[in-house]
Amino acid sequence: MNGAEALIQTLFKGGVRVCFANPGTSEMQLVAAIDKQDGMEAILGLFEGVVTGAADGYARMTDTPAATLLHLGPGLANGLANIHNARRAHTAMINIVGDHAVDHLKYDAPLTSNIVGVASPMSHWVRTSTSSSDLAVAGAEAVVASQIYPGQIATVVAPGDHAWTDGAMVAACEKIPDVPKARELDVLKAAAILGNKTRKSALFLGGRALREAALFQAGRVVAKTGARIICETINARWQRGAGRVTAERLPYFSEMAVEYLDGLEQIVFVGCKPPVAFFAYPGKESWISPKNAKLVELAKVSIDPEDALRRLADELDAPSLPANVQDETPTNFECGKLTRESAGIIISKLMPENAIVSDESGTSGGAAFRYSAGGPKHDWLMITGGAIGQGLPVAVGAAVACRDRKVIALQADGSGMYTVQALWTMARENLDILTIIMKNNSYGILNIELSRVGVTHPGPKALSLLDLSNPTLNWVSISEGLGVKAVRAETTDEFFEAVSQAMVSTGPRLIEAQLL
Amino acid sequence: MNGAEALIQTLFKGGVRVCFANPGTSEMQLVAAIDKQDGMEAILGLFEGVVTGAADGYARMTDTPAATLLHLGPGLANGLANIHNARRAHTAMINIVGDHAVDHLKYDAPLTSNIVGVASPMSHWVRTSTSSSDLAVAGAEAVVASQIYPGQIATVVAPGDHAWTDGAMVAACEKIPDVPKARELDVLKAAAILGNKTRKSALFLGGRALREAALFQAGRVVAKTGARIICETINARWQRGAGRVTAERLPYFSEMAVEYLDGLEQIVFVGCKPPVAFFAYPGKESWISPKNAKLVELAKVSIDPEDALRRLADELDAPSLPANVQDETPTNFECGKLTRESAGIIISKLMPENAIVSDESGTSGGAAFRYSAGGPKHDWLMITGGAIGQGLPVAVGAAVACRDRKVIALQADGSGMYTVQALWTMARENLDILTIIMKNNSYGILNIELSRVGVTHPGPKALSLLDLSNPTLNWVSISEGLGVKAVRAETTDEFFEAVSQAMVSTGPRLIEAQLL
Repeated sequence: MNGAEALIQTLFKGGVRVCFANPGTSEMQLVAAIDKQDGMEAILGLFEGVVTGAADGYARMTDTPAATLLHLGPGLANGLANIHNARRAHTAMINIVGDHAVDHLKYDAPLTSNIVGVASPMSHWVRTSTSSSDLAVAGAEAVVASQIYPGQIATVVAPGDHAWTDGAMVAACEKIPDVPKARELDVLKAAAILGNKTRKSALFLGGRALREAALFQAGRVVAKTGARIICETINARWQRGAGRVTAERLPYFSEMAVEYLDGLEQIVFVGCKPPVAFFAYPGKESWISPKNAKLVELAKVSIDPEDALRRLADELDAPSLPANVQDETPTNFECGKLTRESAGIIISKLMPENAIVSDESGTSGGAAFRYSAGGPKHDWLMITGGAIGQGLPVAVGAAVACRDRKVIALQADGSGMYTVQALWTMARENLDILTIIMKNNSYGILNIELSRVGVTHPGPKALSLLDLSNPTLNWVSISEGLGVKAVRAETTDEFFEAVSQAMVSTGPRLIEAQLL
Repeated sequence: MNGAEALIQTLFKGGVRVCFANPGTSEMQLVAAIDKQDGMEAILGLFEGVVTGAADGYARMTDTPAATLLHLGPGLANGLANIHNARRAHTAMINIVGDHAVDHLKYDAPLTSNIVGVASPMSHWVRTSTSSSDLAVAGAEAVVASQIYPGQIATVVAPGDHAWTDGAMVAACEKIPDVPKARELDVLKAAAILGNKTRKSALFLGGRALREAALFQAGRVVAKTGARIICETINARWQRGAGRVTAERLPYFSEMAVEYLDGLEQIVFVGCKPPVAFFAYPGKESWISPKNAKLVELAKVSIDPEDALRRLADELDAPSLPANVQDETPTNFECGKLTRESAGIIISKLMPENAIVSDESGTSGGAAFRYSAGGPKHDWLMITGGAIGQGLPVAVGAAVACRDRKVIALQADGSGMYTVQALWTMARENLDILTIIMKNNSYGILNIELSRVGVTHPGPKALSLLDLSNPTLNWVSISEGLGVKAVRAETTDEFFEAVSQAMVSTGPRLIEAQLL
């Protein structure tokens, strides 16, 4: 078999079941090898940001890596922003990037570039194969590297001649290392401070501490200690809804976040570091935690949070049932023109049990997030690295991972444009995704940020750079052009009807929610 | 003034008149500074690949750099593929990339990344400012670095606090170095071999040797020596049309290119290196020039080609008027269903004097290229680095540079999707661009390449990765969703009518040319 076949069979044996792809000439042998590999799906994205974002969404829902197939340095570069997001989500991902045949590199042909250089800033692990037979070995190493808990970006550069040369063999993957557990000392430290109920305490959660089982253990700690449960502003995958242990979400803007934590005397971190401001601003703090609070890191992101929280709860002799369990919270909305508030309430009312929400709704989505807390159980996926253009691709990947679940892509109009090509993949794969474009014709966040960085009297040229009108995007037309049925809603009645319809059907749909 | 104002004023003093931008929070001070800078245009792209591709198109037409404004590592990454193309086009470009405030970097906030690492593979010159007052100095250096002949990619990383801190000053740009001239020895060598008319000779041109004035001198050499003029397959800007000295274009596929040059005994290179295959293929040559031919490098790409060719012509005592001047060549097409051939002929018939063509038409565009050779004078811009998604953004930049000229974007459907957001900027800026989507519902080149790399019996999974149907893209709908008036043409009558209409109107339009 050739190197490409050996690589793909190695990945399959290592558990990789999906390859999101946007190949070029230098990847044709890899395409042929995927073709021959029964049981491995090949899903085309019409832009590489779709490919890498989909791999991220897939892995967030399965906790196993997808592969991507990318074309040389520029193809990888196009996928890099969503690799950045995946890296910040601690997602397992295996990128296969074709390169020129080794003997061809010296000619510096037009598509030649430093692929390792492009990959390195956003990858945990990068390796170029050294021969046809080494390509599968590199793949086997990538399978393991990508799954170092909780997940890493592993990138394999595959020269064309290594792919097409015969005489290669499937390589065996080594065992994935066990998930590291919290140190006993840290459990005792955390228990010691939280045991003191006279002090204002919080558990501060991130990473996989936002999964249901870990939250359950955090709820036991609360039942015993009365500590608050707070979590990072942005989380890769948060299991929420009525009946699950809930957490307070730290506000986004740093001064509000500082105020939010003010008064806490001790904080135990699980699955994350102490929070910092997303951006720096003139005269504002980057550090969010109260200056005099006692901070204990029970488990960083690379430590099993459920185990750590269970041991903490047991050490505290906590009851077996958790506190902080979310109630069902029925809500009502005001009829009329659609607003962020009413749109959010309608979404959370109509969301089915077990939905997955891919949230890149920016300034327009807060209400949907808040009201869904008391709705049916669901997974909420966020834009972890701040590189916009994540929402639609992650929805694609989540829907491929969970074909029996409804996926809702809550998408701001500005950021939706970055990887709008994702709609086409939704159509081709008939993915059960409802995309809701929260349309305010603006980079809403930047209009806020402009004043926050101290620009008080912006002129028309500055404002034009933050504005999406002139012309207004017609998302219905764009979506239908990409093969996804779409409808516009401007009133609560129209929106309620459109979301209801989408919930009783399957397959991709888009609603352009024109917000007041 | 703050660092941002000092930087923008420095760039303006250095001749920068346009900033293509997609800013974020960390660039808000730079947005405000551009706002204050009279005479500097600020043009928004809804994706960074549009921004960098537009800067490339602008500089190709003006030979002066535009600035780009990009948001941190991921924003730069999104623009990287078209920076790669610009680098391969030897385009002058100044990228301003915001970064977190220096004190904020240690917190490793979600959007933190190694920006210099992302920039380096595709930049000739990268520099992070060291202080508020240094930011303008870095900008002044970038103005010069970008204009080292024939053009370089200069990237300035601008930390937020350097932008917002007061006390900065405008920096002076040093003089742009003179364009290096060919060595006298090389002129004599080239003259010596071309003077021997018994041997089969060619001038092989690339880079700025494809501009009218350099071609004129090449034509004088031909008038004296009978050498052929051949040029690179892919050229950043080729000045063509009846009345100009013409050149033969080297075929794309390597075995055809080898055959094309076969029999030549001596080749003089001006503005380029000897050609190599675009990709390597099993058992095929990467080196294109005949093995036994005498090769003389008169002027590499960084040497003034017009001067070199004039001195060569003078040394040969060539006549003052050139040979190889292109005649007008009237053409006719077969009526009926639209084909690549008839579409190409219609485009070249209707193209106005002084048009600019941005060609990313892939496998569908050859006829338009061939037939336009004998049409009115025009500039033909190609996808220099092979990173698809260049065509529409380069058209944007060319149209901004030359608001009085008609721009025609000849665009393949597959590659058009990568930076489809460019249509919106065409609409916002009311750019005089006719986009023609050459629609074959396929990554046409990959269907050819699959067999060329030796894959003889591709299965349905492989073919699905090269196929753009299921669903078919509706470019009329996509285009109108982005604000550009569009029409579909399936017959020669419809296409002739649509192109004619576009030629007598101004402003952006799109024609979806459904090819048989």
